[in-house]
Amino acid sequence: MNILVLNGPNLQLLGTREPELYGVETLESIRTRMEERAGELAEQLDEPIGLEFRQSNHEGDLVDWIGAAPGQADGLVINPAAYTHTSLALADALKAVADRVPAVEVHLTSIQAREPVRHASLTAPACIGQIAGFGGLGYVLALEALVDALSST
Amino acid sequence: MNILVLNGPNLQLLGTREPELYGVETLESIRTRMEERAGELAEQLDEPIGLEFRQSNHEGDLVDWIGAAPGQADGLVINPAAYTHTSLALADALKAVADRVPAVEVHLTSIQAREPVRHASLTAPACIGQIAGFGGLGYVLALEALVDALSST
Amino acid sequence: MNILVLNGPNLQLLGTREPELYGVETLESIRTRMEERAGELAEQLDEPIGLEFRQSNHEGDLVDWIGAAPGQADGLVINPAAYTHTSLALADALKAVADRVPAVEVHLTSIQAREPVRHASLTAPACIGQIAGFGGLGYVLALEALVDALSST
Amino acid sequence: MNILVLNGPNLQLLGTREPELYGVETLESIRTRMEERAGELAEQLDEPIGLEFRQSNHEGDLVDWIGAAPGQADGLVINPAAYTHTSLALADALKAVADRVPAVEVHLTSIQAREPVRHASLTAPACIGQIAGFGGLGYVLALEALVDALSST
Amino acid sequence: MNILVLNGPNLQLLGTREPELYGVETLESIRTRMEERAGELAEQLDEPIGLEFRQSNHEGDLVDWIGAAPGQADGLVINPAAYTHTSLALADALKAVADRVPAVEVHLTSIQAREPVRHASLTAPACIGQIAGFGGLGYVLALEALVDALSST
Amino acid sequence: MNILVLNGPNLQLLGTREPELYGVETLESIRTRMEERAGELAEQLDEPIGLEFRQSNHEGDLVDWIGAAPGQADGLVINPAAYTHTSLALADALKAVADRVPAVEVHLTSIQAREPVRHASLTAPACIGQIAGFGGLGYVLALEALVDALSST
Amino acid sequence: MNILVLNGPNLQLLGTREPELYGVETLESIRTRMEERAGELAEQLDEPIGLEFRQSNHEGDLVDWIGAAPGQADGLVINPAAYTHTSLALADALKAVADRVPAVEVHLTSIQAREPVRHASLTAPACIGQIAGFGGLGYVLALEALVDALSST
Amino acid sequence: MNILVLNGPNLQLLGTREPELYGVETLESIRTRMEERAGELAEQLDEPIGLEFRQSNHEGDLVDWIGAAPGQADGLVINPAAYTHTSLALADALKAVADRVPAVEVHLTSIQAREPVRHASLTAPACIGQIAGFGGLGYVLALEALVDALSST
Amino acid sequence: MNILVLNGPNLQLLGTREPELYGVETLESIRTRMEERAGELAEQLDEPIGLEFRQSNHEGDLVDWIGAAPGQADGLVINPAAYTHTSLALADALKAVADRVPAVEVHLTSIQAREPVRHASLTAPACIGQIAGFGGLGYVLALEALVDALSST
Amino acid sequence: MNILVLNGPNLQLLGTREPELYGVETLESIRTRMEERAGELAEQLDEPIGLEFRQSNHEGDLVDWIGAAPGQADGLVINPAAYTHTSLALADALKAVADRVPAVEVHLTSIQAREPVRHASLTAPACIGQIAGFGGLGYVLALEALVDALSST
Amino acid sequence: MNILVLNGPNLQLLGTREPELYGVETLESIRTRMEERAGELAEQLDEPIGLEFRQSNHEGDLVDWIGAAPGQADGLVINPAAYTHTSLALADALKAVADRVPAVEVHLTSIQAREPVRHASLTAPACIGQIAGFGGLGYVLALEALVDALSST
Amino acid sequence: MNILVLNGPNLQLLGTREPELYGVETLESIRTRMEERAGELAEQLDEPIGLEFRQSNHEGDLVDWIGAAPGQADGLVINPAAYTHTSLALADALKAVADRVPAVEVHLTSIQAREPVRHASLTAPACIGQIAGFGGLGYVLALEALVDALSST
Repeated sequence: MNILVLNGPNLQLLGTREPELYGVETLESIRTRMEERAGELAEQLDEPIGLEFRQSNHEGDLVDWIGAAPGQADGLVINPAAYTHTSLALADALKAVADRVPAVEVHLTSIQAREPVRHASLTAPACIGQIAGFGGLGYVLALEALVDALSST
Repeated sequence: MNILVLNGPNLQLLGTREPELYGVETLESIRTRMEERAGELAEQLDEPIGLEFRQSNHEGDLVDWIGAAPGQADGLVINPAAYTHTSLALADALKAVADRVPAVEVHLTSIQAREPVRHASLTAPACIGQIAGFGGLGYVLALEALVDALSST
Repeated sequence: MNILVLNGPNLQLLGTREPELYGVETLESIRTRMEERAGELAEQLDEPIGLEFRQSNHEGDLVDWIGAAPGQADGLVINPAAYTHTSLALADALKAVADRVPAVEVHLTSIQAREPVRHASLTAPACIGQIAGFGGLGYVLALEALVDALSST
Repeated sequence: MNILVLNGPNLQLLGTREPELYGVETLESIRTRMEERAGELAEQLDEPIGLEFRQSNHEGDLVDWIGAAPGQADGLVINPAAYTHTSLALADALKAVADRVPAVEVHLTSIQAREPVRHASLTAPACIGQIAGFGGLGYVLALEALVDALSST
Repeated sequence: MNILVLNGPNLQLLGTREPELYGVETLESIRTRMEERAGELAEQLDEPIGLEFRQSNHEGDLVDWIGAAPGQADGLVINPAAYTHTSLALADALKAVADRVPAVEVHLTSIQAREPVRHASLTAPACIGQIAGFGGLGYVLALEALVDALSST
Repeated sequence: MNILVLNGPNLQLLGTREPELYGVETLESIRTRMEERAGELAEQLDEPIGLEFRQSNHEGDLVDWIGAAPGQADGLVINPAAYTHTSLALADALKAVADRVPAVEVHLTSIQAREPVRHASLTAPACIGQIAGFGGLGYVLALEALVDALSST
Repeated sequence: MNILVLNGPNLQLLGTREPELYGVETLESIRTRMEERAGELAEQLDEPIGLEFRQSNHEGDLVDWIGAAPGQADGLVINPAAYTHTSLALADALKAVADRVPAVEVHLTSIQAREPVRHASLTAPACIGQIAGFGGLGYVLALEALVDALSST
Repeated sequence: MNILVLNGPNLQLLGTREPELYGVETLESIRTRMEERAGELAEQLDEPIGLEFRQSNHEGDLVDWIGAAPGQADGLVINPAAYTHTSLALADALKAVADRVPAVEVHLTSIQAREPVRHASLTAPACIGQIAGFGGLGYVLALEALVDALSST
Repeated sequence: MNILVLNGPNLQLLGTREPELYGVETLESIRTRMEERAGELAEQLDEPIGLEFRQSNHEGDLVDWIGAAPGQADGLVINPAAYTHTSLALADALKAVADRVPAVEVHLTSIQAREPVRHASLTAPACIGQIAGFGGLGYVLALEALVDALSST
Repeated sequence: MNILVLNGPNLQLLGTREPELYGVETLESIRTRMEERAGELAEQLDEPIGLEFRQSNHEGDLVDWIGAAPGQADGLVINPAAYTHTSLALADALKAVADRVPAVEVHLTSIQAREPVRHASLTAPACIGQIAGFGGLGYVLALEALVDALSST
Repeated sequence: MNILVLNGPNLQLLGTREPELYGVETLESIRTRMEERAGELAEQLDEPIGLEFRQSNHEGDLVDWIGAAPGQADGLVINPAAYTHTSLALADALKAVADRVPAVEVHLTSIQAREPVRHASLTAPACIGQIAGFGGLGYVLALEALVDALSST
Repeated sequence: MNILVLNGPNLQLLGTREPELYGVETLESIRTRMEERAGELAEQLDEPIGLEFRQSNHEGDLVDWIGAAPGQADGLVINPAAYTHTSLALADALKAVADRVPAVEVHLTSIQAREPVRHASLTAPACIGQIAGFGGLGYVLALEALVDALSST
């Protein structure tokens, strides 16, 4: 079971970017936490779980990666960051592969508690579920939800 | 550590209510799954975790319970169901106790993928985070997120 | 054939409440008119028709009663009054039982001819039809429409 | 007592037009059902009830007919179909004769359960009431409501 | 002269609930202040003034109490709290008794200075006036305005 | 100089239609007043002024007449009634002939003082000016404005 | 019969201000045209007609003048210019004197054919009618409509 | 294969109507171009293609013609002109016959580049596709698309 | 303690202006009532209370007076009348002095019960509270609230 | 004559992406169909027609290509896919070259028949026309329309 | 070259008004900074530059001054403060003189970063450009931009 | 002091792109003007000022560059062009570095005077100020404002 973890714009700055809002945890430490949980889940399922972790500020890169995912990955954890609210192209990409590569959307902050422009998610309808507001832990919970969905199919 | 799990309107029907949308799992089985995970988490934390599970179709009951929570509970898992989108009273109740009894909002379905009236959450800004779209598993993840928040304070 | 007739908020005041708008007929006399028509229809169908008549100002009571209807009633006549326009919980309850206990929505006044806040009905999409503007007679017509739907299934 | 029954655009197609939505009953059979009920009601009132049934796809024809109704008819049953939502001219015509020729609006389908463009009715404020969602039976109920209003004046 | 003082959702928490917003005064001390002023006003009018003070988190309780007020009370002071903005049922109840039991609406905070969802009041059009932003003193002023209205009729 | 005076839906009812709103003057007497003023203006200009007066409830008739006006008429006085607010076809027709047959829009009532649906005029941008609120006198003033525009070109 | 003619902001610039939009006629020449027509109308009515002509860029001056009009003038011709669309104070002033000093609103240009901000008139509901789009002639027609209204009372 | 070509309001004026917007080509020359292409396509398909060309300014005529099309025509090319944006009746008619007589919508101008009122098409969802902005050539392309759809079924 | 009482546009007309809406009390008698209550309050506080009462129809005068208030007055009672809803300049002025000269907003009528344009108050967020709907008594209550705020600081 | 054919995000997936919506035809086969038609048109015009076909998921690539088109291409066929509705940058690019390299917009599906977010096209006003709903055939028709425009200049 | 510098409502308070928002610089010191830069620019251009500096809280004063500017001044620097967002009269005045006395709009704060009511500028379309967010320096930059525009004509 | 000057989509076309709107100045000549002013400012401050000038049509490039700015640059001058209105990612990037690398937003044209889609700026709230409407000079003024801000910290 291969999981692709995609991170959208400005997430490369995690840890230094508005820490009072986004926390001090870096993308690297989130990756570590996910790998630990992947290990535990793999043990429970008795099946290896591979994680591939990517970040880009380019909407097109994210669309490229999602379009190429079928055959490479079984599921997606995606934090589309600002593109959540503006990228119909990303939503279309997720919908295009949804039956083969289901996705879970994750946000570090509670987007419904922020400015109105962040309340609506274009990508949510193309994902099986959303997790928001728990910082880096959200990625770990998303992984658990995704593995549950993939293994129960 | 005592956790209060509150369920809003029509959730008593779970399992028979539009199963193609809400699944066949009952509220009772969700409670069982939460108790199992509570057991595991209690072991990890080396501290007992109590779960109290309630459901009501009355907005006022939910507001009563939340207002009375300080002193009785350390955190809330809440699925406000339809009241998510219409009850400012519930939002006010959650905000009134937020600093003493933090809450995690959970939804069985992916509300952003449903009708527009379900996209906006009045209660979300009063909770630390939201989990939506994973059926009963969402409650388990919410418990994990809440326990993490409570134990890291 | 058992029919549950549910009345929402402020309808206990019928006859004294803004009579120039709602008329002077009381809920009690509406019940009598419905029972007379139920008698006639029962005769035509050669099958007894039971009517149970309830009123509550509590949204939660209405949701409770609808959730408990399957097994107790075959159809619903409902005048949700002000909750028509504000209660998503009521709409969800009606939808949850719609395939087992169909409902007809009735309003004493012509709601589309009143203030804009009364133009939209959250509950309408969960009912088989609506009747508005005919005062107490509307309940009688709703009964006739409901019995027709139940007996033609 | 003379009743004019007016049918708006595309209703000439009834029975073949999207039968999964509008049913298979034709306008002709609706006329027959109305005539039967008119006979029963005439007997109860001990006064003949004449029905005149018309259909047109032309907004102007409907406006012409309504304007000419005073003196020819005592009441109107009208299904304005698509013009319900777009014809202010029709609404004006109904209002112009409302004190002399009251009208009841009828819809085959439950318009509040359909697309948003069909939720608002321009003509409703000019009618004494509305009946929607019961197919051809709605016309029969409308007749009953109209006769009740005319005979109780 | 009997005055009914009704308090809506979460007001039982007054004094502990977001004190930087709602102040530290409790509902109990507000009742005391009102009774003192009632005493003074009774003396001026040379007529006893009875105060009955209630609180509920249930919209239905408030609607019940208002509907039952005629005969029991001569006027209402009401702080509908969150229901100000969401409860058409409450507005309908106030309108239903307005000619027999006039009401004054009071808010602890200046609602027009808060979030947009709190700017519109559904209940205001059913009251003779509003007082907002003066904390507990607002109840005292509302009492004075109500007694003035009742005694000048 | 030939002037075509076009009247839209329900204006055939003038004098009997909601007289408290539209007055008791008939279309016929308005025609007479216009002819008198046309006579005076013709004398001043020393040039005959022909008036042709038409009414239809059919949007298509109005569009036909306007399209055929070039060559037959030099200017239009038009009261589009309800079509003012709903007929883009009428607006297109007026625009199509505007450089050859300028039009003046007239309304019996002050449309900006009525319901919101009557505030916006689709046809106004295709006319040289509007006159509203003066009953039948408005037609006479429109004639004067039109003749002024035609003779000053 | 005394008529007060009020002109709002920037009308002192008439003749030099955007002449392709507002024309080259000055306020002075409009006054002359009105006086000529006033002379003709006075002769017809056999009653002198006094005209007082004012302009101000200050909203407060216009409100002052309107408030002081009762006793000084019998009717108003007003071109509120930009204040048409932004001044509720002006609308309130006109409404305050409407039963004693009726007003006619006039605009040089066809405001419905201009930018959306100019489509809605706050002052129109406080006037008996509007004339727009005919340049200086509009004032003359407004005078005629006003004199007709004043002399027919 | 019979194709019905329907033209809406004001298209009879083509060639003289705002030629800088709609061009100088007449409806007659468009018919000629379509017949030429129909001849070529008929040859390719080895099946005769009949074209019937109609225009009306009456919404009702267009609705009549579409309703009567099944049995008379195999497909529709329609330029609803202004009715595109205002006629729900036309949309309903197209939907009513869509499975038997598919339609292609054509516009001479690029409607999305014009005023906002022309951006939304009520009829588009009832057609298989739209072609806009190419003047008379659009009809020819619409014919090609329609013939392709009909022959590939 | 000096209190400045500011009155906005058209309030000079009080007593004659739409008395069915605004009552027959004049600004002069309101001033008298305020002075009486000021006397009582001064006695209670054992500190003289000066009242200065002004009215202007000029937005600029109100802005001037507020800007000059610090040093001259300790608090403001203001009825901005129509400027409540349109004057951002007035709101800015109140905000500019709010920490030195707090203000209480008063309205004679219940603005939330009137036309939508009067529901939103631009000035409210710059005041400590609002009182609406009690006619001249509102000024007296506002004075009491303001003195309470000033003396409790 | 050189034509540049640009394809936006997710179009590389054509054939496998939601085939019930977008069909099973691949971008490659669309290119083949265009080349065939280009051959036919070249023969008619007696002038070679070169086609260059590109796809990118990157908004910036599309903007780069359009900006570089003058000198390289004579016209554009563009399917901006999701960027149609969100990319003002793309619209600006098309407008920047419109007088030298005209464009035709093409969509595989009928965008007006899909979700509201797809109804508005930012790019349409920068193109000479649009073709939507005919799958791969739309590209062929777009080519024909573009060649017609280029050769008739 | 004469430059008129106009300041709108509440700017007389600069230095004491919400200094955390508007800074502590006074209007007087801004004038001094502008005069210094005017001196430098005059030297560069070898042409004297006169500055006249005015402030008023009266919208009408600003409109008067702008209307009188032609002949007195060559350009305007204007900070319309709150009137930026509410005064169509000011916008009309600026437009009326724009070809003879061009204006530059300046704001002390970054208005797009403040409340929504301050995002739209009615006056901006009548100015050649805007500068916002740089406190008093903004006036100096505005002067430079205006002098550049005036000297390059 | 190092300044990074970032240019968004289509700005590479400056000089040839819609010159009647954007002028004929190229990005290269703007760079030259900035360097000249940088030289003057450096002299005044007695501190070298480095300018780095970049342009990209890729939103991702701009986000990359801004994220990497801390450590490389002290301040930003940015013309986000079309991304001003659509890129939340760009706004997030600017906010992420705002405390270390402040930015000034510049636009060649007066965006508030253009189409509504260009009125709102997503990036403005993340910048210290905006300058719009002065063509290439705006960059020079932006540089001056930025240097002033950087040197006054």
